[in-house]
Amino acid sequence: MEKPYVLGIDMGGTNTVFGIVDARGTILHSGSIKTGIYPDINDYIDALGKGIEVLLKEIGGSDKIKGIGVGAPNGNYFNGCIEFASNLPWKNRIPLAQLICERLNIPVTLTNDANAAAIGEMTYGVARGMKDFIMITLGTGVGSGIVVGGNLVYGHDGFAGELGHTIIRRHNGRLCGCGREGCLETYTSATGVARTAREYLEIRKDSSLLRQLDPDTITSKDVYDAAIKGDKLAIEIFDFTGAILGEAFADFIAFSSPEAIVLFGGLTKAGDLIMKPIQEAMEKNVLKVFAGKTKLLFSQLKEADAAILGASALGWEAKEVLFE
Amino acid sequence: MEKPYVLGIDMGGTNTVFGIVDARGTILHSGSIKTGIYPDINDYIDALGKGIEVLLKEIGGSDKIKGIGVGAPNGNYFNGCIEFASNLPWKNRIPLAQLICERLNIPVTLTNDANAAAIGEMTYGVARGMKDFIMITLGTGVGSGIVVGGNLVYGHDGFAGELGHTIIRRHNGRLCGCGREGCLETYTSATGVARTAREYLEIRKDSSLLRQLDPDTITSKDVYDAAIKGDKLAIEIFDFTGAILGEAFADFIAFSSPEAIVLFGGLTKAGDLIMKPIQEAMEKNVLKVFAGKTKLLFSQLKEADAAILGASALGWEAKEVLFE
Repeated sequence: MEKPYVLGIDMGGTNTVFGIVDARGTILHSGSIKTGIYPDINDYIDALGKGIEVLLKEIGGSDKIKGIGVGAPNGNYFNGCIEFASNLPWKNRIPLAQLICERLNIPVTLTNDANAAAIGEMTYGVARGMKDFIMITLGTGVGSGIVVGGNLVYGHDGFAGELGHTIIRRHNGRLCGCGREGCLETYTSATGVARTAREYLEIRKDSSLLRQLDPDTITSKDVYDAAIKGDKLAIEIFDFTGAILGEAFADFIAFSSPEAIVLFGGLTKAGDLIMKPIQEAMEKNVLKVFAGKTKLLFSQLKEADAAILGASALGWEAKEVLFE
Repeated sequence: MEKPYVLGIDMGGTNTVFGIVDARGTILHSGSIKTGIYPDINDYIDALGKGIEVLLKEIGGSDKIKGIGVGAPNGNYFNGCIEFASNLPWKNRIPLAQLICERLNIPVTLTNDANAAAIGEMTYGVARGMKDFIMITLGTGVGSGIVVGGNLVYGHDGFAGELGHTIIRRHNGRLCGCGREGCLETYTSATGVARTAREYLEIRKDSSLLRQLDPDTITSKDVYDAAIKGDKLAIEIFDFTGAILGEAFADFIAFSSPEAIVLFGGLTKAGDLIMKPIQEAMEKNVLKVFAGKTKLLFSQLKEADAAILGASALGWEAKEVLFE
């Protein structure tokens, strides 16, 4: 019997969303539970299982599902476990794929959220047909999923693609949550943009709409709102952020020479405000042999759907596996 | 009829070496011609063809050769052409694979020299059995070949893996031959080490064996000779070079999480003088999730043989192809 659907689960620090998806990338049914309210992983799995069973009834049972794909922070493709995930309630290594598989009796494939986004983009989005591209997610942090020759790069341990933690300012760089200094993420995540705003407001003397706000609670959204009103300081903050991303992308291109770099996440709403300085800095900094070759694209997936779609795309490649 | 051998051609700026290799990596017969003395590519191909035909007679003809692998500066795997190669006598795009194939009637696969070295290491060397590793060649320049999931990373245009041209010093970095500033190669190639020596001798006042030499003609070999005699300044030059490589490797690991980084080329003769500072800086700078996971290895291939072996390894995957 043919299995026409996949199931995608996206586990975030706050919410876990899930949905049943067909081969065209249409989400047929979806639901969500809170992630952070279950100190015991077994209670979380049980709540998740119950939520999913409601959806399975709608389509006539689990026999219609080819596989489950899960995107989760620090999810490891090779062993199906979550490890080192600082913003989740469970501190130990969690065999997430195995637990979900045992609960629902459907094959499960796990990876981290940025890798899931890359697979989603390749399956349903702007990277369809591309064999070599890099997905960069600009959210609270900066994540990445790297596709080489049509396959996601997992590395020898399943943790490859931490481009948000490459060093873009090597001396006196900003302190990062990872304990090191100068990571790309500290400058170009939504949090990084807010940090830049606070720095600019302190160092600079020129007027800005941003001066009406409490610097301690300023967000990248505030900077965006000011920038589209023509606020010079806010526009310069996007220029600064874009320039740093473009510099970093020039180095990423020297690594895997992708056909495109696809941007996803909250910051991409800034459109040309962020895209133009990225493009300019990327072309200015890239090695001559790569000049003008790598496209810079925004994801075409709706942000609300992308998490489920990205995770679900992994479900198409889910196989019956034995967990360690 | 089974074809037991491959033929490797390594084209350098000065010499082109070639040899017939068996499945165990033994070079049965080899030869060489000068590269730079043929302003017309057809004369070069003719001389190369004649040199190779001498070897083919020794093994009983070209029917015994499964394929020819060629490593050449800026060699493009996808189209079999050399492009942008600044240290070769031919300025246009040269369809090298096609020309050699037509001359000898054996399938030809071309790639750049660092990629060939990586394939050689995977086929006959220290990276046997590895699916994910990065080869770094420390010679006149710094080259790289990246292997992901058992396959070489070519990128969408065939030019991926230019890690010598990632930026390691972003502001006031050394001017590079590529026209940009701060490339890894300007610090960690043999030329870069000599450059560091000249800088140290000018800025510093302490005594050193290196002060007996003409700074303008100092080489990385001179620095090595002084360092093994215990010269403090020379040892510090290796510490500086190794630290920069280690910082760069920490970022490379964030990209593809390789099982190993394999070092090859003249500078590796410095042994622990260069290996220890690399290891130290790499572990100090690497993201926690990768700490202690990536091995740092020296190539086990003899330098005299490695060029031919690396190129020849490509010959095993050579197929009958149509050139554009």
